[in-house]
Amino acid sequence: MKTIDLNCDLGESFGTYQIGNDDEVLSFISSANIACGFHAGDPHVMNRTVKLAKKYDVAIGAHPGFQDLVGFGRRAMTVSPSDTYHLVLYQIGALSAFCMAHSVELTHVKPHGALYNMAATDINIAEAIAKAIYRFDSTLALYGLAGSKLIEAGKKYGLRTVSEVFADRTYQSDGTLTPRNLPNAIIQDSDAAIKQVLQMVKGQTVQTTTGEVIPIKADSICVHGDNSHALQFVKELREALCNESIKIKAIR
Amino acid sequence: MKTIDLNCDLGESFGTYQIGNDDEVLSFISSANIACGFHAGDPHVMNRTVKLAKKYDVAIGAHPGFQDLVGFGRRAMTVSPSDTYHLVLYQIGALSAFCMAHSVELTHVKPHGALYNMAATDINIAEAIAKAIYRFDSTLALYGLAGSKLIEAGKKYGLRTVSEVFADRTYQSDGTLTPRNLPNAIIQDSDAAIKQVLQMVKGQTVQTTTGEVIPIKADSICVHGDNSHALQFVKELREALCNESIKIKAIR
Amino acid sequence: MKTIDLNCDLGESFGTYQIGNDDEVLSFISSANIACGFHAGDPHVMNRTVKLAKKYDVAIGAHPGFQDLVGFGRRAMTVSPSDTYHLVLYQIGALSAFCMAHSVELTHVKPHGALYNMAATDINIAEAIAKAIYRFDSTLALYGLAGSKLIEAGKKYGLRTVSEVFADRTYQSDGTLTPRNLPNAIIQDSDAAIKQVLQMVKGQTVQTTTGEVIPIKADSICVHGDNSHALQFVKELREALCNESIKIKAIR
Amino acid sequence: MKTIDLNCDLGESFGTYQIGNDDEVLSFISSANIACGFHAGDPHVMNRTVKLAKKYDVAIGAHPGFQDLVGFGRRAMTVSPSDTYHLVLYQIGALSAFCMAHSVELTHVKPHGALYNMAATDINIAEAIAKAIYRFDSTLALYGLAGSKLIEAGKKYGLRTVSEVFADRTYQSDGTLTPRNLPNAIIQDSDAAIKQVLQMVKGQTVQTTTGEVIPIKADSICVHGDNSHALQFVKELREALCNESIKIKAIR
Repeated sequence: MKTIDLNCDLGESFGTYQIGNDDEVLSFISSANIACGFHAGDPHVMNRTVKLAKKYDVAIGAHPGFQDLVGFGRRAMTVSPSDTYHLVLYQIGALSAFCMAHSVELTHVKPHGALYNMAATDINIAEAIAKAIYRFDSTLALYGLAGSKLIEAGKKYGLRTVSEVFADRTYQSDGTLTPRNLPNAIIQDSDAAIKQVLQMVKGQTVQTTTGEVIPIKADSICVHGDNSHALQFVKELREALCNESIKIKAIR
Repeated sequence: MKTIDLNCDLGESFGTYQIGNDDEVLSFISSANIACGFHAGDPHVMNRTVKLAKKYDVAIGAHPGFQDLVGFGRRAMTVSPSDTYHLVLYQIGALSAFCMAHSVELTHVKPHGALYNMAATDINIAEAIAKAIYRFDSTLALYGLAGSKLIEAGKKYGLRTVSEVFADRTYQSDGTLTPRNLPNAIIQDSDAAIKQVLQMVKGQTVQTTTGEVIPIKADSICVHGDNSHALQFVKELREALCNESIKIKAIR
Repeated sequence: MKTIDLNCDLGESFGTYQIGNDDEVLSFISSANIACGFHAGDPHVMNRTVKLAKKYDVAIGAHPGFQDLVGFGRRAMTVSPSDTYHLVLYQIGALSAFCMAHSVELTHVKPHGALYNMAATDINIAEAIAKAIYRFDSTLALYGLAGSKLIEAGKKYGLRTVSEVFADRTYQSDGTLTPRNLPNAIIQDSDAAIKQVLQMVKGQTVQTTTGEVIPIKADSICVHGDNSHALQFVKELREALCNESIKIKAIR
Repeated sequence: MKTIDLNCDLGESFGTYQIGNDDEVLSFISSANIACGFHAGDPHVMNRTVKLAKKYDVAIGAHPGFQDLVGFGRRAMTVSPSDTYHLVLYQIGALSAFCMAHSVELTHVKPHGALYNMAATDINIAEAIAKAIYRFDSTLALYGLAGSKLIEAGKKYGLRTVSEVFADRTYQSDGTLTPRNLPNAIIQDSDAAIKQVLQMVKGQTVQTTTGEVIPIKADSICVHGDNSHALQFVKELREALCNESIKIKAIR
């Protein structure tokens, strides 16, 4: 039976500030990427989110980002590979403490925001991330954009890599995502998004904006749960996958 | 042969800001308490300090503090036991990542500054710290002020506790330290300080400011290395302990 | 014609995190206390909130707090008077820049959360705040709890003081607020809360929990706007004040 | 009589962390750029540095940077012009509060580190900075790299601009600084550095690395005071300027 992983970024609240519907989305996904206190999250939120993910039997991953709370880790910074290695290692360790406290396994790491994007194209940043994971625990899986430098770096370090695809983003003929500033970057129609996912999961191909069909590795689909529209889409996607007898299952 | 542990707070530099002579003091001590990025230290400094401590075969401990960099973790905050539990767990995890990366053991935890002082007298804060350590790894040792609530809390959780004494602070008849704002709080003369240490280590007693001799548990002596005077004192203390055939040795 | 000021804490969003219904509540109040980036708010939010307050012709005040974003400035810290003076001065200056950029006057300062509470009872903290305001601009008004040390400190520095009262909190016979942990601390019934306000505003007295009627200085009423219930209450309070021909008007 | 301004970045200590010899260098310079708490400095340090600069009658400028203490504001971030405008305005305001408290004038603004470098080449960032200054106080001077976009932006907003040159950096034939990673970027010999300064100040020209002599606008020379070597150079530079009857004088 075919399986696919659904992953979602969680634990992004901070102090008195609430974001997301973590409790609700956890019933639909198989893997949670939990913020580690640099771009979002705080020790209390991390503890609560790990506990919640355990309750729903969802695989737990660290979601390290830049130390830029006001920018939510979405602003690129000219960090060195050494900076990157240290900040990823720190954040994985911090999250792992809550996993240990709850006797639940840490299964993967997915970089956040600007760090994720930089790691997709900059091999030095990508390798620094892979090295931090490898040194912490070489059995952890590394999530990265399908076809990116981050996946390449993970393979170099012998890590289990998870190629991530997007339901609602269009792809260009070279396999990269259409930049968000272009008009056709986003798939607005949820049926079209679901159709794209099914093609990626079943056929490991995607139709590009120029009409070609190109190969794509789809191990996990990134979904969102921070608004009711997003939650609704995840429900529909689950149903569509179920109808095709594709099981939603974490990679561990 | 009698042994005693010498511990020192290290890894307190931050970014471009340098504090301490970590490299030098490491050759004199047996245990290092490494700052975890909240009151001092950053991921790069933590990595460097763990590496250095390993090189000198010095036991490595996490030194968690309040998230108050500008106050160096020395300002008391009205945190809840839950706040305390989460912030200690987070910081232990963060430091442990660098230990894992360097394949070196994390051996103990010693709270820093205001958190240490609060844990000495507030049993709820003390128990929150002990619980965080217990949940992370119940084999870690807990450092606390000799005779304090923190030692009591550590015992309650079945942790190995390390009672810490001070060479250059005077003790009151109830076994507590003379508050720093009192004129006779500090022992200025290094010979007198060494004499106090020898009495504490050999006899497990201390002479109080009122002249009485009271029992004190002395498992570890806290020393400083952030100025040349402090370094000189550590050297003299080592020599004095050596002359009495007391071996300087970490607790692990 | 009798007048009263209605003040509300605003501009408490941070980065991607949203709190409050600033736009809505601004149409009901006469004075806004705007967070300055330490316990809440960021430069972008401060700019937007100053602009919005100007649009509604609401008096603008700085709302400085402790540098504790994760605790929302609600956790007491053992700061020195010197710490307090500097952190208040810094935050007033920061907010004033946005007032200058929008050519709108900064009219007052009200400390936030734990700083407000500490200043109510600790004369040294209270005087440090008053001194910071005095040195920055001696024409600024200082908001403080009616009958508190902060009002006393403001008077000592010759500042215009604004005694703040609460609609939904009960008062003890010594004029202090009933601590929140006591069962009768909060007035749940909005009619009772409005009745208390009218008595305070019209009669400058309040009925205490023990049944006595004691004098209270009521220059401004603190209201909240961060949920629909709070907004509803402000509307009702306005109507009640209007029915009594009491005009809602800022102090400037 | 010819005059020149000597400016230096000051007030870069933070909490318990000390950097620089502010007290010493202030006797040699005419303008101080004071860190505003984002990349360095804290409210206490800002107060002390403003007080000290006033004592030495040195012109006071705000030195805003990115909110990246661990990176000391030296790491480029992809900020929007709006981000830039807000963070500069905030920091100018914060510093101005300490000037008001000490009844001393704020005279100028010089961006720090990565923000300075980005503003040298990115006109949108440059204009956001100039706009923030203009909106705060259009009589403030703006310091920028001679020939940079920042100077251009300052002129567009009608600000008094101060073109800054470097004593110990070499220039390329297009008037830009030789990048630091190139072998001939730094002038090691202090006599050669002084010679370059004299040519820039007296002749408003500089000899480039390719041997050409090109025009350069030199209103102010950036010097450093954070080590004894740097302090010695400033003394020698002052003497050399004095021998040429060039007076060291702030721009106000």
